[in-house]
Formats: sequence, structure tokens, C-alpha cells
Amino acid sequence: MTRQAHDLPERLLAGDRRALAKAITLIESTRPADRAAAEALLTTILPATGKAIRIGLSGTPGAGKSTFIEAFGQYLTGLGRRVAVLAVDPSSRRSGGSILGDKTRMEQLSRNPAAFIRPSPSSGELGGVARRTRETILAVEAAGFDTVLVETVGVGQSETAVADMTDLFALIHAPGGGDELQGVKRGIMELADIVIVNKADGDLLPAARRSAADLQAALHLMRPKHPGWTVPVLQVSALAPRGIEQVWTAVEAFQATLGPAGLAAARRDQARAWMWSDVRDGLLQAFSDDPEISKAAQTLERDVATGKLPPPQAAQQLLRLFRKA
Amino acid sequence: MTRQAHDLPERLLAGDRRALAKAITLIESTRPADRAAAEALLTTILPATGKAIRIGLSGTPGAGKSTFIEAFGQYLTGLGRRVAVLAVDPSSRRSGGSILGDKTRMEQLSRNPAAFIRPSPSSGELGGVARRTRETILAVEAAGFDTVLVETVGVGQSETAVADMTDLFALIHAPGGGDELQGVKRGIMELADIVIVNKADGDLLPAARRSAADLQAALHLMRPKHPGWTVPVLQVSALAPRGIEQVWTAVEAFQATLGPAGLAAARRDQARAWMWSDVRDGLLQAFSDDPEISKAAQTLERDVATGKLPPPQAAQQLLRLFRKA
Repeated sequence: MTRQAHDLPERLLAGDRRALAKAITLIESTRPADRAAAEALLTTILPATGKAIRIGLSGTPGAGKSTFIEAFGQYLTGLGRRVAVLAVDPSSRRSGGSILGDKTRMEQLSRNPAAFIRPSPSSGELGGVARRTRETILAVEAAGFDTVLVETVGVGQSETAVADMTDLFALIHAPGGGDELQGVKRGIMELADIVIVNKADGDLLPAARRSAADLQAALHLMRPKHPGWTVPVLQVSALAPRGIEQVWTAVEAFQATLGPAGLAAARRDQARAWMWSDVRDGLLQAFSDDPEISKAAQTLERDVATGKLPPPQAAQQLLRLFRKA
Repeated sequence: MTRQAHDLPERLLAGDRRALAKAITLIESTRPADRAAAEALLTTILPATGKAIRIGLSGTPGAGKSTFIEAFGQYLTGLGRRVAVLAVDPSSRRSGGSILGDKTRMEQLSRNPAAFIRPSPSSGELGGVARRTRETILAVEAAGFDTVLVETVGVGQSETAVADMTDLFALIHAPGGGDELQGVKRGIMELADIVIVNKADGDLLPAARRSAADLQAALHLMRPKHPGWTVPVLQVSALAPRGIEQVWTAVEAFQATLGPAGLAAARRDQARAWMWSDVRDGLLQAFSDDPEISKAAQTLERDVATGKLPPPQAAQQLLRLFRKA
């Protein structure tokens, strides 16, 4: 083993960028030797983690997420903070890369020495991508970043996964009207702790105001996620930039509302959710990895879909096979 | 075995009420002999099932769900339909019973010979209650009911479970304003295929109109669940009764929009979802039933919550124990 590998934890904790990149490469690797090394590293650095504020971000297509993250990141480093930007995108391809965490879309931030941008781990099951991102959060925190932004593009259940691994979740919305109205993906509205209506400038300003009012009304109809916290709808122009400061003010107000006890409880929930999420993934993986079971599952799924076999019987048959194995 | 048990399938298929009650009791029983008999019964009657329209119903507290179901059920039997009302309420207690499917709240309907009301299976894990309800849907369909209403009270994930087992999901909302505004439980809005604002009469009429407009605006912001189907928001007075007919018209329009192919596809999805839901429940059950594993899980959960052990390592340890067992 080289000297580099031996002192990787130390160099990571010292904030060495190359050590951080190496650590994340280890985390993302599927080779068993690398996985073992990553686990050892994480156990070593664990006491140095947990001190950052973790913010999840999702946005409807065309909402200007990258522009917002750049403006937000620049603002935060201006306050003296150290900002890491990660991404969860199960649809990213190894060759093409993900459109998230694309440094060409966040040029200034990618050159900012107090910021660190990492594209999504390349394609794989959401479970694997989410696990690697959670571990990467630990790595960037150990390297001294105090603000972690995790963006997601909205494929499958990626928002829920990101909401589970962060302290608060922000939804970025483009002003509505005309052909651009994509609509918020079902299930996302109630994950939001902060809603941002972006592009609130120039010709779009009236539309932005209307969208903000509509979103406020919709949120008002829903039971609160955290007692005492009313989800704010903020009109922002990431391009100008204007309104960025109020987003950070809202984040701080959210932290103050939850208080240290509330935040600590949320973190414990996050950690437990991670453990059980990995357990479920592991169980289902062991289940479908078995060739006999996955073959039987195909046949049984067909019988169930065509009404030949009641679903609970099909489930019983599969579970019986699993127990014999 | 008595003659009754031998011909239970035949009597059920003939629409015999006592046979139906006996079948459901078998389904709800946890005794292994009863479970085996229930499974045999379900396999026998399966070809006679699937012909009803299955409608899920949830409502904010005070929305008047029972009054609505009674009015709706009476209207539907007036059309010549045969209506079964089931309930999913994991919080119901054996002695107290559930407030759902409470015949005293639906007096007329409980005396209606073309209707059948069954309270929720008594308390237990949601998974068990949901499975028993799904099987009960099959039993009432075999007995000739062509309309199945499944109501839920909103505990935990019961709405999602009910949405997974029905063809369409209706949300009943009370007019907003003042202290009564409970708010729609997060995650429910996007399950809805039809939204009903109840109590749209008398003094509450203006409030009902405003709530309907707010809900419409909120739904408009969200991506459609089914292409081509705009979720209607209907103002109804279950007490009058007024507006009930438009609810059934909306149900029929929904069926027409999906078309036979769309409905068949939805049913196949329901059946597959049931199978995998049972598989997941079975896996997690086998997992937590093991005393060694459940003891280790408690300790590991604590270490994970206090930041002593990274969650993925804790998950690995549990999975290793499981594989040895």
C-alpha cells in the first residue's frame, strides 16, 4: 500500500482536495477491495462529520436550478462558508455524465476555491446512488465543508431519497403560464420546507407573483411538516441576482425554529432511515440476485397480472423459495 | 368438516350473505388452519372477481365521510348497483371497533339489502390490514357486488395502501376557514383522482366555493396522474343530499378516459403491487421475527442514532446475521 493510502483519512480531515476526490472515488467504486477501504475510511472520519447544514434541492425542468445553485453558492462563500454541491441522478450515464453538477453550468462556482462540485455517481439503481451520495456527504463534511447542497433532477423517487438525507428540502419552481407549465411532480410539494419561485424578473415578474400566490395557497391547504414552521414561498431572480439573501435567511430561520434538539432529532431520523433503507435494499437484492427466485418471480408476476393466481399466494411461494435457499 | 364448509365457495358465488360473512371471518383470522382455508377459497373464487369498480375514499377529520358514503351508497343502489363498503383502519381496536364502517353512522345504508358494510379488520400492522382488505375485496366481488368503496381514516400510510388497491381514489374535504382548517395530510393530494368539497350548503357555501377554488389551483400546479384526466373538484352536500350524481358521473368519465386498456393495465399494476408488497412484508417480518436479529437491530439502531457507527455498516452487520440464519 502506498503512503497516500495510509494517510488518506488524515489528509481528508486536513481539507486536502485531492484526498477528498480520492475518497469519493473509493466510495463510488464497486470493487470489493475499494468498498472495504471506503467503509474503513468512513468509520475513521465519522466523529468529524455531521457539522454541516444539509440542503436538498429539486426543481421543475427549466426552473433554473443550476443558475440558482451558482448564485446561492457564491453568496454563501461570500459569507465565509464552504459549500459542497452534490447530485443524485440515477439516470446519469458514465460516458455522457449527468447534467447535474455540471461544472460548465456553474462556471464561477466551479472556480471558487471555497466551493466543491461533484457530479452524480453514474447510473445505477437509485438505492446505490443514494447510498454513495450519503457517504459522500460524510466525506465532504470531514473535509471541512459546512454547507452541503444536494440537487436532484426528479427521476423516480430521487426527491424522497434526497429529502431523507438532508436537513431541509427546497423546491425551485419556474413561473407558470403558457407552455412552460410543467407542473410540480406529484409528491414533491409536501417534501418542501422552502419553495423558491425563480426567474422573478422582467417580463416574468407578474407570472412569478401569481405562481407564488398559487403555491402559497396550495401549501396552506396541507398539514404542516414541522410544527411552527410555515413553508415560505420566495420570489427570486438567480440571474440578476436578487432575493438570494432571503433564501439563506429562511434557512437560518428554519434552523432556529427546529432548535438544536429538533435538528438533532432530525439527524437521528436520517441515520436510522439510512440504516433501514440499506437493510431493505440488501434484502431485496439478496432476493432478486438468486437466479431460481428471480426466474420464479417472473413467472409468478405473469400469473398474478393475468389473474391466474391470487397475489398473496404468489408472494408466499416466493418467500418459501427464499427460506429454503 | 361440515356441509357448510364444503360448499362455502358455491354459496359465496351465489351471493349468500352468511357465506360472505363467514368468508371474511376466515380471511381475517390469524389461525393457520383458517389461513389455509382462506387461501383455498380465494384461489377457487378468483375467476369470478375483478368485475367491480373499486373506489378508495379518504377525508380530513370532520369532512363528513360517513354521511357522504351513505348518500353515495343510497344513490348507487338506486341505480341498481350493489355496493360494498370496506375500511382500512390500522388503529381500530377489537373491543371498541373502528369508527369506520360503523353502521350506526350509516344507518340507512346498513339496512339497504343491496349494500354490505364491513368494519375494518381490527388492529394490527397496516400491512396485515391492507392484505385482509384486498382479499375481502375479492370476496365481495365474488358475491356479486359491482361497486366496492374502501374508506380510510388517514393513519400512517393507509391512504397509499388504499390507493394501491383501488381503481380511483377520492378525497373528501371540509370547507376551510377558522379553526376547522385541519389541512390535507401531506402526500394525499396527489393520490386523488376526484376531490369532493363536502358540506357545500347553507352558511358554508361561500367557504366551500373558496376551498374548491384553492384545491383546484393546487391540483393545477401538479403534474397529472393520468394523461388526459383533469382531477375535478366537486362541491357536494351529502346531507341535503345534493351533487351526489355528479360524483358518479365523474367516476364514469374517469373510466371512459382510461378506457378498457387503461383500466386493465391499472388492475395488473394493482395485482403486481400486492404481490411485491406481500413479499416485502414477508421479508421484513422474517427479519424482525428472528430474536437474535431484532436484538442486534436495537443495539445497532442506537449506535447509528448516536453517531457511533455509520449506517451502512450497521445494515451490513444485520444482513450478515440474516444470511447466517
